Amino acid sequence: MIFNEVLKNVSTYEAGKPIELVVREYGIDSKDVIKLASNENPYGTSPKVIAKIQELAKNMCLYPDDSMYELKDALAKKYNLESSNIIIGSGSDQILEFCIHAKCKKDSKILMAKTTFAMYEIYGKHVGAEIIKTNSEQHNLEEFSELYKKHGADIIFLCIPNNPLGECLDKNDVYEFLKTIDKNTLVVVDGAYQEYAAFKDEKKRICPKDLIDTFPNAIYLGTFSKAYSLGGMRVGYGFAQNEIIQNLYKIRAPFNITTLSLAAAIEALKDKEFVNDCISKNFEEMKRYEEYVTKKGFEYIPSYTNFITIKFGDKYVSKEVAQKLLERGMIVRDLTSYKQNAIRVTIGKPEQNTKLFQLLDEVLQNL
Amino acid sequence: MIFNEVLKNVSTYEAGKPIELVVREYGIDSKDVIKLASNENPYGTSPKVIAKIQELAKNMCLYPDDSMYELKDALAKKYNLESSNIIIGSGSDQILEFCIHAKCKKDSKILMAKTTFAMYEIYGKHVGAEIIKTNSEQHNLEEFSELYKKHGADIIFLCIPNNPLGECLDKNDVYEFLKTIDKNTLVVVDGAYQEYAAFKDEKKRICPKDLIDTFPNAIYLGTFSKAYSLGGMRVGYGFAQNEIIQNLYKIRAPFNITTLSLAAAIEALKDKEFVNDCISKNFEEMKRYEEYVTKKGFEYIPSYTNFITIKFGDKYVSKEVAQKLLERGMIVRDLTSYKQNAIRVTIGKPEQNTKLFQLLDEVLQNL
Repeated sequence: MIFNEVLKNVSTYEAGKPIELVVREYGIDSKDVIKLASNENPYGTSPKVIAKIQELAKNMCLYPDDSMYELKDALAKKYNLESSNIIIGSGSDQILEFCIHAKCKKDSKILMAKTTFAMYEIYGKHVGAEIIKTNSEQHNLEEFSELYKKHGADIIFLCIPNNPLGECLDKNDVYEFLKTIDKNTLVVVDGAYQEYAAFKDEKKRICPKDLIDTFPNAIYLGTFSKAYSLGGMRVGYGFAQNEIIQNLYKIRAPFNITTLSLAAAIEALKDKEFVNDCISKNFEEMKRYEEYVTKKGFEYIPSYTNFITIKFGDKYVSKEVAQKLLERGMIVRDLTSYKQNAIRVTIGKPEQNTKLFQLLDEVLQNL
Repeated sequence: MIFNEVLKNVSTYEAGKPIELVVREYGIDSKDVIKLASNENPYGTSPKVIAKIQELAKNMCLYPDDSMYELKDALAKKYNLESSNIIIGSGSDQILEFCIHAKCKKDSKILMAKTTFAMYEIYGKHVGAEIIKTNSEQHNLEEFSELYKKHGADIIFLCIPNNPLGECLDKNDVYEFLKTIDKNTLVVVDGAYQEYAAFKDEKKRICPKDLIDTFPNAIYLGTFSKAYSLGGMRVGYGFAQNEIIQNLYKIRAPFNITTLSLAAAIEALKDKEFVNDCISKNFEEMKRYEEYVTKKGFEYIPSYTNFITIKFGDKYVSKEVAQKLLERGMIVRDLTSYKQNAIRVTIGKPEQNTKLFQLLDEVLQNL
């Protein structure tokens, strides 16, 4: 059967390996598997959210409220926006997809950093767009400017802070850059890890309302998968001027969020204490990683997120290290597919991190 | 901002009104609102599924198993297929979207019945495809053949049984038709309500494995939203030869199904007794509708699903009837947007149906 030509160039996303897979493939008991691969919140979900889901489980048979009235209302109040500035996606991921399908077609141009979230490129290829990347390892706005002047772009992706490396642009630099961008270019500010960056350093904080009021061609994306601990429930959001939201809505399929996911997100927004507490612990534990990595003589990228990228230089091969850890029930993310000889480790709970250090010691001694 | 030209022709799906909306707009207590608008299973979800979700709610923080190993395995066993023949979507709806994005682009041709599931056309317009429709109210394979000979088609949609009208093609007629279709045309057999049709009349039963073995250009779609009572959880499936599945996979975003939805679907598949019991009750109650509608002197379309389409001819205006019912806390689906002066009513529980008859009497007396 003949399929669309663009599909030939589409690669698929390499997801973090699930615990079930390690149980199946290596025969390790699920309670002995630790997953520090997908930047999930290791402190689990707020007990209040869990209680709410248990209460509402009987409602699974009913289609979700497709207007998403309550969740939009809660987000609008928190961020001082109107509901008409908001679109909800199955993860912020799905809003990336909406943006690309609304703005791009074959030969459209998409500008992004060399090493950034893989789905920008994958979704771009779904429509046959041309992908333009900067050269530096980390986000470099001068290079973005040069390439933009040379090629233009229908969409620019900025990942602030950046996944999978962890670095973060300053808000002021982003604003200076955005002033130079044509109003017909959609700028996607992916704030999936903004809660972490803003906690660590006020200079990194992007206020969504100020961003979209100042730059009507910008869209701000956020997610419930990270700081809000709902990675399994697939809820993210986009904030933009109504004209953009209306066009993205044309791409959105009805009922794109489950009944329980909507309820979980609404409840998670309320439990601010839980979120702050998790973020605070995250950076406490991050210090242990920085010390450990330094002691081992490796490099790491200072991180504004809930993960850390550890580089092996010419000492070890990251793919082998990740594999050996996997066989011991420790799942981390090898960054070979991002052309980095590095692993990305989610900052876990204290005891999980201690175990990671132990197993990494063991693995490196045997390589 | 300039968006893709095709978006200008995209309309959005009119979802059944949620109970929350009636509560908000008409100030009716939620326990007094009855929703017979979205063909949800009125008997709620299997208690075993609810218990499973309550148990697993603590796992919401973890990303779903993106391989969907367990659910595919369960479906493969039930339908005597390989996992490689299966793709899982956020409702079978999402698989429609995959099919269209994989096969169609601007000016591709999509053939469908005049009055059928609205998303076939909406997704088709997302890519700028040309929509070709038969003339008869219900599925008419002779007309499909004529149009196919005249125009060809990249995709043909058959909804068996058909939503929103309820009629159902015979399996043998479908097979005869499929024999005449070119192997490069993808034929989507949408079996969202097949469990109901097969229960009522063996001649309507489509065996997915036999279908795709006999016609390698066919894909069979099923859903957990109807007979399996998981409308809120967004899980559907597509069965096809591996070549088709692989190409659809290129369009699929990672983690398109939530952790709890996967678990709910796996559990729902196990509780066959619950599903059979619900379907059996459905057709018992359907008889009451047929009697009521006949007594009132209206027409209905004999239905192979969990809903019934009641036509008002020149006696009443369906939009007004639906609105008056809504104001009394009874949500049904007006079919005006489908160019039918009719309402579609989901067969509810006995007491809900009694209430519908009561309120409809009341409303009609006052129109």
